[in-house]
Amino acid sequence: MTATDHGPQPAGPRPAFPAVDHASRRARARARLADHDVDGILVTAPANVRWLTGFSGSNGQVLLAADPADDRLVTDHRYEQRAAVEAPGIGLALTRDPISVALTAAFTRLGVEAEHLSWGAARRWQHRAEEQGTTLSGTEGVIEALRVTKDAAEQARLAKACTITVEALEWLFAEVVAVGRTERELARALERHFVDLGADDVAFPSIVASGPNAAIPHHAPTDRALQPGDLLTVDCGALVEGYHADCTRTVAIGHLDDDLVRVYDAVEEAQTRGRAAAVAGATAGDVDAACRDHLASVGLGEAFLHGTGHGVGLDIHEAPAVAKGAAATLAAETALTVEPGAYLPGLGGVRIEDTLVVTADGPPTVLTPAPRELRIL
Amino acid sequence: MTATDHGPQPAGPRPAFPAVDHASRRARARARLADHDVDGILVTAPANVRWLTGFSGSNGQVLLAADPADDRLVTDHRYEQRAAVEAPGIGLALTRDPISVALTAAFTRLGVEAEHLSWGAARRWQHRAEEQGTTLSGTEGVIEALRVTKDAAEQARLAKACTITVEALEWLFAEVVAVGRTERELARALERHFVDLGADDVAFPSIVASGPNAAIPHHAPTDRALQPGDLLTVDCGALVEGYHADCTRTVAIGHLDDDLVRVYDAVEEAQTRGRAAAVAGATAGDVDAACRDHLASVGLGEAFLHGTGHGVGLDIHEAPAVAKGAAATLAAETALTVEPGAYLPGLGGVRIEDTLVVTADGPPTVLTPAPRELRIL
Repeated sequence: MTATDHGPQPAGPRPAFPAVDHASRRARARARLADHDVDGILVTAPANVRWLTGFSGSNGQVLLAADPADDRLVTDHRYEQRAAVEAPGIGLALTRDPISVALTAAFTRLGVEAEHLSWGAARRWQHRAEEQGTTLSGTEGVIEALRVTKDAAEQARLAKACTITVEALEWLFAEVVAVGRTERELARALERHFVDLGADDVAFPSIVASGPNAAIPHHAPTDRALQPGDLLTVDCGALVEGYHADCTRTVAIGHLDDDLVRVYDAVEEAQTRGRAAAVAGATAGDVDAACRDHLASVGLGEAFLHGTGHGVGLDIHEAPAVAKGAAATLAAETALTVEPGAYLPGLGGVRIEDTLVVTADGPPTVLTPAPRELRIL
Repeated sequence: MTATDHGPQPAGPRPAFPAVDHASRRARARARLADHDVDGILVTAPANVRWLTGFSGSNGQVLLAADPADDRLVTDHRYEQRAAVEAPGIGLALTRDPISVALTAAFTRLGVEAEHLSWGAARRWQHRAEEQGTTLSGTEGVIEALRVTKDAAEQARLAKACTITVEALEWLFAEVVAVGRTERELARALERHFVDLGADDVAFPSIVASGPNAAIPHHAPTDRALQPGDLLTVDCGALVEGYHADCTRTVAIGHLDDDLVRVYDAVEEAQTRGRAAAVAGATAGDVDAACRDHLASVGLGEAFLHGTGHGVGLDIHEAPAVAKGAAATLAAETALTVEPGAYLPGLGGVRIEDTLVVTADGPPTVLTPAPRELRIL
């Protein structure tokens, strides 16, 4: 494979999704420049580049200037043709030295994404910028803040990814899960089914955790075979045109001890409460508290080892974080996950997760409406 | 999926590879601290963390100290059990704030990886370090330099990944490639075959480029169907225990115009010369020149759009870069690719690539010995 990096595969023919208006997105970002005290920004995070332009190659940057005519997509010769197809509405600069493009324009104060630029590159760029009379300013979250709420084009892609995910997961439970099957076999079958149903890829490596392994939140599939009495947790998602689905269901194999049934019921109730709390005007911390307080009330507070959820879109994890005390206020059209869990070392664990979209005035839209009641397979 | 990031899947049962001596690797790295004028280093690049400890989770850092007893693997609770299994020989610290672990020890000058730490994190960490009387120093390539030559444990894993890659590629050409098949179908079949043959995953998204698409070095598979007269380039690799294979072959479908036959022959000869130049004591630039000069001599200099190759191991692209003028001297046991190509817009292209290991006194070992002569399928 040539050169230094690789991007996701672009999507193939598909039922038409709503078109994306990238110029309008750039205009919204441009309107924020003054608030961040910069007269331009050199965007380097791949998901931000894709959101602003549509370009999906692995090496791409966007120079966003005060005048749209000065905007540039920067990439290298390997991606010249992909850029022309995916990002026709923005000027193209072909170089592996993106700061050189920015420094040919006369910026006074150029923003760079402090969380997505290495310290080494920042030091080199600062030196060169100073020679041109430009000050580099490390900005944080300028584009990410705009990505929190999803437009119709994004919601359509996210919904398709979620629909494929639920269909594949239900197929897995109905057709594949059985005593003797290994975690690895299940993961492989599930991930192939995503692609057969039209996904571009998986959104992330599937978590398939059975029996005692279900007590490990980020368990990777092994050759352990399913046994009667196991809990089985599957956390997975399909990828469609860059958008990541995220869904978890836990089922029982054969039968389930009463103690684990009570854990299941507690997590299901916590998830119901978390979903109900995901309304416009609430904070992300309110959603977390709805889950966390219920689990604590039934003695499972210590068994809930992680945050309640996260925003999801062009990144599998993006703003807002849904965690204890998180202050971000939820706006309509925000996509997020709600995924409480309880983990009991040696015994197993339960996690139930949906991808939701907050609505203007009502309960959230659940994009992953797979059954949640305890199923004994 | 919980929290903020994901790592590769750990490997399953497999024929025994040579054991890895991670403590010895840490000792070699420790011996370099003084040269870099630091008394410790906080390693944040995932491949460096894996090389130093064996830990493969997505969130991990290594604090490498002057005294091995002070070394720490830093990760979070999701990965506590994986760390215990994969990295038993190093102290474990569970926190999402790795700098706090470093600042409890009394470093005078702590190295951080300037190319693998964001500018934002560096600024926050500098502030906290100063309060403790510690100076942060941005280092570059400390661990990467040690990773250039591969030990027996690494070569065994790399060789397995390459063997699977060649077997799957030959299967693809023999059993799947046919007029009417699409690029996307070929990529999917190939990638599934890697896993069926024992790979953990693909090393990178496969490039399958046919007809005019073969003129695009980093083409992503489309629904274009193979036609008689096409060149078909397949650039692919299997992943085994973190090690990346990388191999490219170009074949003809049905028949091939004489002009394209001449291009094929030129690239094959360039690749032969590049392979022959990959001997201990030569520079990476010598390997590049061997390919580039031959293509230039037959009028294809402008058609060779990229560098000749790259080091390969725990990263798909690592040191040394094999590019024009590259000064790095090749040592025995260095793994690298040699992959010249020629791209003719509208007509097609040819690339031939092998993964090699430099030997002490002779030609390199070719880990991807698939046939290179022009094949008409």
